[in-house]
Amino acid sequence: MNIAQDRMSSPSVQTLPQPYLLFLGDVTEAAYAKTAFGLRDWAGDRCIGELSCGGGTVTTGLPRLTPKQAHSLGARALVIGVANTGGFIQDNWIPSLVEALESGLDIISGMHARLEGTPALKAAAERHGRNLINVRTPPRDIPIASGSKRTGKRLLTVGTDCALGKKYTALALARAFEQRGVDVDFRATGQTGILIAGGGMPMDAVVADFAAGAAEMLSPDAPVQHWDVVEGQGSLLHPAYAGVSLALLHGSQPDVFVVCHEPGRECILGHPEFPLPSLEDTIDLTLRLGGRTNPAIRCAGISLNTASLDEDAARAMLDKESARLGMPVADPMRGGLEFERLVDACLA
Amino acid sequence: MNIAQDRMSSPSVQTLPQPYLLFLGDVTEAAYAKTAFGLRDWAGDRCIGELSCGGGTVTTGLPRLTPKQAHSLGARALVIGVANTGGFIQDNWIPSLVEALESGLDIISGMHARLEGTPALKAAAERHGRNLINVRTPPRDIPIASGSKRTGKRLLTVGTDCALGKKYTALALARAFEQRGVDVDFRATGQTGILIAGGGMPMDAVVADFAAGAAEMLSPDAPVQHWDVVEGQGSLLHPAYAGVSLALLHGSQPDVFVVCHEPGRECILGHPEFPLPSLEDTIDLTLRLGGRTNPAIRCAGISLNTASLDEDAARAMLDKESARLGMPVADPMRGGLEFERLVDACLA
Repeated sequence: MNIAQDRMSSPSVQTLPQPYLLFLGDVTEAAYAKTAFGLRDWAGDRCIGELSCGGGTVTTGLPRLTPKQAHSLGARALVIGVANTGGFIQDNWIPSLVEALESGLDIISGMHARLEGTPALKAAAERHGRNLINVRTPPRDIPIASGSKRTGKRLLTVGTDCALGKKYTALALARAFEQRGVDVDFRATGQTGILIAGGGMPMDAVVADFAAGAAEMLSPDAPVQHWDVVEGQGSLLHPAYAGVSLALLHGSQPDVFVVCHEPGRECILGHPEFPLPSLEDTIDLTLRLGGRTNPAIRCAGISLNTASLDEDAARAMLDKESARLGMPVADPMRGGLEFERLVDACLA
Repeated sequence: MNIAQDRMSSPSVQTLPQPYLLFLGDVTEAAYAKTAFGLRDWAGDRCIGELSCGGGTVTTGLPRLTPKQAHSLGARALVIGVANTGGFIQDNWIPSLVEALESGLDIISGMHARLEGTPALKAAAERHGRNLINVRTPPRDIPIASGSKRTGKRLLTVGTDCALGKKYTALALARAFEQRGVDVDFRATGQTGILIAGGGMPMDAVVADFAAGAAEMLSPDAPVQHWDVVEGQGSLLHPAYAGVSLALLHGSQPDVFVVCHEPGRECILGHPEFPLPSLEDTIDLTLRLGGRTNPAIRCAGISLNTASLDEDAARAMLDKESARLGMPVADPMRGGLEFERLVDACLA
């Protein structure tokens, strides 16, 4: 889809140097390389190749390139596409990362540890005039939200909980909009989404008073027919993150929202004493609170994460929920007629 | 009231050195010394005296003392009790502030500018082993909220808007609780409240993901009969600050809330296109959202800021609103039977 750098009209919303060389470190299990696979799947046209080190065996299937080869093929940054449990830069990664800086690539990280906290990287970046980019760092000049209505159309994915498909749903909807010829931008609010989009706003790292302002900054005034599809965060009924979700809802002022949910999940992840809110409750609350900054807000339908069901059970579940709620219910990862109906309802 | 340092059981919730010497700078208009007057009115027992400089003419009525005199009378910190429009340390204040550090006092500021940003203060503090304390800086080790129910009772003041009496209402209720023999702490969430209480949590400066965790940290487990009276922030229907308000509501998990409102205010301050939410809507929304972390939450009544009305009109307004809403409605600044009824309802 369209990663319109020029429409990121506020110069301060993070925009990343692209295309990427994906760094896979020394990992031997694909589960540790989710960021790299997410980039391959959703930003494959902006990934030139991959680079491993040590005994790394995981591959994305992209060409294996040295940093110098990648640079000559157009790469502008190496992205750390793997995670370890500590979220830190491993010593055995450093030679490859320094080689990337020497070859003219910036380095981008979504890890907790800041890149410049590793002295060898800081020195090499300074020596070669390259940038070390931590996508978890928000811009400095975020304003207090104004609440003023902006031009263009906006869609926000909201959730009954964390980690059940808000990012994938937003990416799939943005891609579907584009396939229908709609002028659309995916607007990322978390580190993986930001790496995929090449820019965005790390909502979880913004100071609370500025969170709604950050959401306003992320989807600025746009042409009347243009859509911003904004990646949701958390849930309005999450005991820890609801404040972020509400600030994102108010600042995004969506015309349309899609509720993301995982059937079978009974409690908030990591909070077993909090039952998952119902879809109806989530819709009602989102309408009520979102109506404050966009009185025309409406729910287009539901995105169900049916990964744990087989095809027949999944289709039956989508049909049943659609009939029960009286609105489109789809699993964007399965596509199909249900998903086309959801896209229709979003654009209606 | 009780500023129980020992019950600030998490060592990281900011606690301030007290008593104070109030610094009035060179101001000649009382409006610029609101912090000093707030401290005199609500923390008078912890204010030793005042200090002006240059041609300053404003007085709180407290004894005028040199820093050395204040220190010998027990003062432990000089508080910058005035504000200028830029929120900065003026050059002509510096000799007095350095003298305070030399005399053994720490310096406390609620201004935007950080004290150590003024080189002369940084050097003097280092030379004399004193602390420069910026109350707008949150602690470093705020956890993600757990949502777990804590022991003890909690009251939160909530608002239809900013700047209409949430802090004063919380202070007045905490004072009234204490006068009835209740074990109570006022829990501050903004810089003026923090200066008054001698500690607290600057909610507006916490990173969004940690805002509910910060609110949990502020009112830790306490004895069953103990009350924390928490200063509210913003409004759940404020286009810029609702996220902070919701995080504070979820993290405070109040048993009781009091809605603060200013009759006659028609729009959100600074946002003329946003009509003020009704009292009924604010009560309903607070019950619904607050019920997530405390299903027993209830509204005890309303605090009306009737400062713009004369005594007869104010009493008539309180009676009328109480009859209309079927609950106690009082102006804590006027006290009287209405306020006693509100206190009764809080403790019921």
